[in-house]
Amino acid sequence: MAHSRQLRQLRQLHLGAFMRPVSLHTGAWRFPGAWPDANFNFAHLKRLAQTLEAARFDAFFMADHLAVLNMPVSALKRGHTATSFEPFTLLSALAAVTSKIGLVATASTTFDAPYHVARRFASLDHLSGGRAGWNLVTTSNPDAALNFGLDEHVEHDERYRRAREFFDIVTGLWDSWDDDAFIRDVASGEYFDPDKMHVLDHKGEHYSVRGPLNIARPPQGWPVIVQAGSSEAGRELAAQTAEAVFTAQPDLETGKRFYADVKGRLARYGRERDHLKILPGAFVVVGETLDEAREKRALLDTFVHAESGIASLSIALGHDVSRFDLDGPLPDIPESNASRSARQRVVDWAREENLTVRQLAQRVGGYSGLEMVGTPESIADEMEQWLVQEGSDGFNVMFPFLPAGVDDFALKVVPELQRRGIFRREYTGKTLRDHLGLPRPANRFFSR
Amino acid sequence: MAHSRQLRQLRQLHLGAFMRPVSLHTGAWRFPGAWPDANFNFAHLKRLAQTLEAARFDAFFMADHLAVLNMPVSALKRGHTATSFEPFTLLSALAAVTSKIGLVATASTTFDAPYHVARRFASLDHLSGGRAGWNLVTTSNPDAALNFGLDEHVEHDERYRRAREFFDIVTGLWDSWDDDAFIRDVASGEYFDPDKMHVLDHKGEHYSVRGPLNIARPPQGWPVIVQAGSSEAGRELAAQTAEAVFTAQPDLETGKRFYADVKGRLARYGRERDHLKILPGAFVVVGETLDEAREKRALLDTFVHAESGIASLSIALGHDVSRFDLDGPLPDIPESNASRSARQRVVDWAREENLTVRQLAQRVGGYSGLEMVGTPESIADEMEQWLVQEGSDGFNVMFPFLPAGVDDFALKVVPELQRRGIFRREYTGKTLRDHLGLPRPANRFFSR
Repeated sequence: MAHSRQLRQLRQLHLGAFMRPVSLHTGAWRFPGAWPDANFNFAHLKRLAQTLEAARFDAFFMADHLAVLNMPVSALKRGHTATSFEPFTLLSALAAVTSKIGLVATASTTFDAPYHVARRFASLDHLSGGRAGWNLVTTSNPDAALNFGLDEHVEHDERYRRAREFFDIVTGLWDSWDDDAFIRDVASGEYFDPDKMHVLDHKGEHYSVRGPLNIARPPQGWPVIVQAGSSEAGRELAAQTAEAVFTAQPDLETGKRFYADVKGRLARYGRERDHLKILPGAFVVVGETLDEAREKRALLDTFVHAESGIASLSIALGHDVSRFDLDGPLPDIPESNASRSARQRVVDWAREENLTVRQLAQRVGGYSGLEMVGTPESIADEMEQWLVQEGSDGFNVMFPFLPAGVDDFALKVVPELQRRGIFRREYTGKTLRDHLGLPRPANRFFSR
Repeated sequence: MAHSRQLRQLRQLHLGAFMRPVSLHTGAWRFPGAWPDANFNFAHLKRLAQTLEAARFDAFFMADHLAVLNMPVSALKRGHTATSFEPFTLLSALAAVTSKIGLVATASTTFDAPYHVARRFASLDHLSGGRAGWNLVTTSNPDAALNFGLDEHVEHDERYRRAREFFDIVTGLWDSWDDDAFIRDVASGEYFDPDKMHVLDHKGEHYSVRGPLNIARPPQGWPVIVQAGSSEAGRELAAQTAEAVFTAQPDLETGKRFYADVKGRLARYGRERDHLKILPGAFVVVGETLDEAREKRALLDTFVHAESGIASLSIALGHDVSRFDLDGPLPDIPESNASRSARQRVVDWAREENLTVRQLAQRVGGYSGLEMVGTPESIADEMEQWLVQEGSDGFNVMFPFLPAGVDDFALKVVPELQRRGIFRREYTGKTLRDHLGLPRPANRFFSR
């Protein structure tokens, strides 16, 4: 670990909390002591946000769907994720009961208007004193399209072209006013200086938006831009526009390739490497011992309904497993079209942990991305490795169940990260940009 | 007042606080001791909402614009209303720091999608424990159209047809789930009962929306429906759908005609008279004496810029007054196309209060609707007259300046209303429907 000790002064971990669905794990709401309605109970979410703030998290991140997913009812009815709060209303309420933690809302460029999106994020940024972030998604979900009058979903490249224009409009609207436009001169009666107001007058391929925005420039200049797309178009859009990327990376080696690729694109757009943070999602289960952590994870998996687990496992293996003996070991599986690395990972789980087909199905149906299951020390070791080896700049942490999963992380893992000097003990700034070490964007219309 | 004493057990005043712009009066931000940034400072608005809740107001009402109004810069720059918080974000934040007062947000049926609107109000209703209201506006402002890619504004009747369909979809989406659909049965693993989920599948003239809404039915069933349209189409839509009407009525006689007309339309739709509350806007200036109140009002008017006042006065009189001697009395004005009653009211002000043309211009440019200027007793008398004579069910109170205008009303007028037994001393319910005495709507898809 000598290498990491030297870097310690240089690099700090950034932590987001992935909070919708409250847990990605479909059995979370049934875990002993869990809050079954945690995704829908403001008192609970307030308590969690305050816990995360006390643990000095960078941000509370609110994922989103614009539909009840159109899956078979037999599976849908078992999940806690069909319904939840809407992100802007929830995060605005949380802004009033927290003072430091960042608040990242998801908003789609496909199903909303740039003026609305610019305005709501500016408003959240003002309400929170500069803590807003925009998770810009292009929404590929066809179920959402049907809720917005679109029979056919907009195709992938078109969505990204539209997203880029949408981004230009939203940031242009945020720049409608110079930072010191509002002089409020009681004596002269001038509320603002008209020379410091800009009418955007955007007329582009997809949108026509006059402006100016009817809200002052956000405290952060622009709320922090967050993205999650991992396709070629998604990586390019991120390199051009994003300041944080939430991504799914199955393991450190894959993560390092993604990290190098995305960071490597920045120079082409005249951007500094440090001005985009890469934060893979990590599902963290904490125990006093490794065995205890694994037992929690195994118990959690038992709450996944076998039927939905078998469907997920069949997809992961590229093979219909429903006729296998559920209580026997996984047979050898022939080659298939399924991603080889994903397939191998699943097979490895079965072999290493001696899982039955049922247990494997429940594992895959519960959650099958990057996970860190262990003691506070082993989890801190893993996180430090990702940081030191340039696999990430931190993590978007997913909790296995609530509230204990959050409390375990906040009270056990965070102190261990702090002890190692790779995570803040106190917030040193006030805004989400401060927490993430990002520059405040200049106003494109008003240089100084 | 014997008549009023008899009715006292029966009828109670309902009070909303009209809070955006923070004052309708364009000179408000310059008044001595006023907060010039009150419309844009969350700490201030939190303080005001908590004061209004302590005074037992029914609701905090947030008006809205979807544009910086395209008026001459010389006038625009003098107002405090060009920018403000966005309603959903502000009211959600206020929901977290209040516990009883209703929260009414304005949302347009012309520039938003029904799924978004249904979802945000449902979310605000859940966050606030049943305190949300939807001020349904059709938005006639052409400046807003230009911010949403529409070169020509949608014409009046078409807007109302669209609004009616929009309303049907939003309320249909709110009914997507039965009130007890979410059983969260940890033992069986059923999170909800699929028989209690309804897919709307709306295909209409203007909209196609599948559903279901991805949020549980609001605590109030539906958030309270509020409207402000006073045209024939507006009154009909209100009679069919509204539960509260915010309206501009210049005086009690006009108010009584409006009240009788709108209440008279309800039976046609099988609705009870009491299930729609009529709340005219009232601009209230409180003094220890009538003279002190009038002096405050006159001082406030001096903060209106003469230029914008003269434009407003010319419109009100239907005559260009810019060549008159500003410091002389109002000359006789020939007949014109201007509304005779509005014109006469303005002329009466000039004669009764011996105003110069400049003072009259400042009065009209500041605020020219219904006002109650006087002592707590005289204001309570006026309000009681409106209630007793069936001019209204209460008021949407507009404050002349902040915070003193709110404090004066809360600490002086409200106790006088309470003393007379026409306004609550304590909240007797928890939801905005409870405060307004409105029934909880049945779910159209799940009867019981």
